[in-house]
Amino acid sequence: MNATAKYRATIAVLAAVALFALSRPIQSAAGSKPVSTGSRVADTNASPIYGVTVPVGFRQWELIAPSQEAGSLNELRAKLGNDVAMKAYRKGSLPFPDGTILAKVAWKRVSSADYDAALGAPQGFVPGAATTLQFMVKDSKRYASTGGWGFGRFINGKPVDEAQHEACFACHAAHAKEHDFVFTQYAP
Amino acid sequence: MNATAKYRATIAVLAAVALFALSRPIQSAAGSKPVSTGSRVADTNASPIYGVTVPVGFRQWELIAPSQEAGSLNELRAKLGNDVAMKAYRKGSLPFPDGTILAKVAWKRVSSADYDAALGAPQGFVPGAATTLQFMVKDSKRYASTGGWGFGRFINGKPVDEAQHEACFACHAAHAKEHDFVFTQYAP
Repeated sequence: MNATAKYRATIAVLAAVALFALSRPIQSAAGSKPVSTGSRVADTNASPIYGVTVPVGFRQWELIAPSQEAGSLNELRAKLGNDVAMKAYRKGSLPFPDGTILAKVAWKRVSSADYDAALGAPQGFVPGAATTLQFMVKDSKRYASTGGWGFGRFINGKPVDEAQHEACFACHAAHAKEHDFVFTQYAP
Repeated sequence: MNATAKYRATIAVLAAVALFALSRPIQSAAGSKPVSTGSRVADTNASPIYGVTVPVGFRQWELIAPSQEAGSLNELRAKLGNDVAMKAYRKGSLPFPDGTILAKVAWKRVSSADYDAALGAPQGFVPGAATTLQFMVKDSKRYASTGGWGFGRFINGKPVDEAQHEACFACHAAHAKEHDFVFTQYAP
């Protein structure tokens, strides 16, 4: 094979690799984007204390599990995880690695007229108005004093006040310490 | 630029493209795999009537919405959609295009001791044992007589009987015809 033929062969192989690689779906790319953890103290979109912001593309992350909170909040929730989180959940090992981000998306729990008609009884419930977004960001150095986790709670895209954020870690430490401070288990 | 230099330049560009492309995440690839719709009549893993099988990788699909069914089933559910489904939901147009697959993953709704302790009241509910998997597959030609949808309901990975599958379309036609026979709305 002469030099020109070698170049041509190399080009052909690289072109094939490039075409194959480009043909792969990119939808989960949003899940791998780094979250801004609000290094700008003046960022009004970052949570107090922790500086956590709403991660780009989080709504497209995979589902960890749904849940329900009855009582006065009366919500349906979905817990979603970024790629780092899902790998850790599937591996089943704790603690979660740095880079893990967990999302809790909450909606009012409302009756579904369609479901109720189908079921013949008032027993179908679906998401109504969106209420809160909550995130846990693992960064063992930055958040060393709170189990490695930073917290952010948002209503209409804006973080709630400092008092609410002060309550996050105390509750997680009291009731979920044995799961690396995370309540949610993966629902297979 | 001589011929050799041109080849070298081409190789450099292709190598860069290939490296970039290969660095993209592939996690959602499972969501784009075609579902086997059970052309083999003897496939015991395919649903009666429709020949729908459990799509590979469906658990990694994006969340459409959670839901709850009270009553004797007492379940929490999550509706997931493949890439075609999610594009259609986000676009907001009906009918869903061919290739849409919707998944309903159901679990028993059970109390969470951790949540109840955190909430100070018995009002936290999470997924317990997995119960059923259900799928709707859009193929307007193959399933022309049932609104373009094929149905599959599975327990422990095996399809339930023909009688149960006969009930699918009648109920969707009676109560969700105005949404292209789909009950579930996207929860933003």
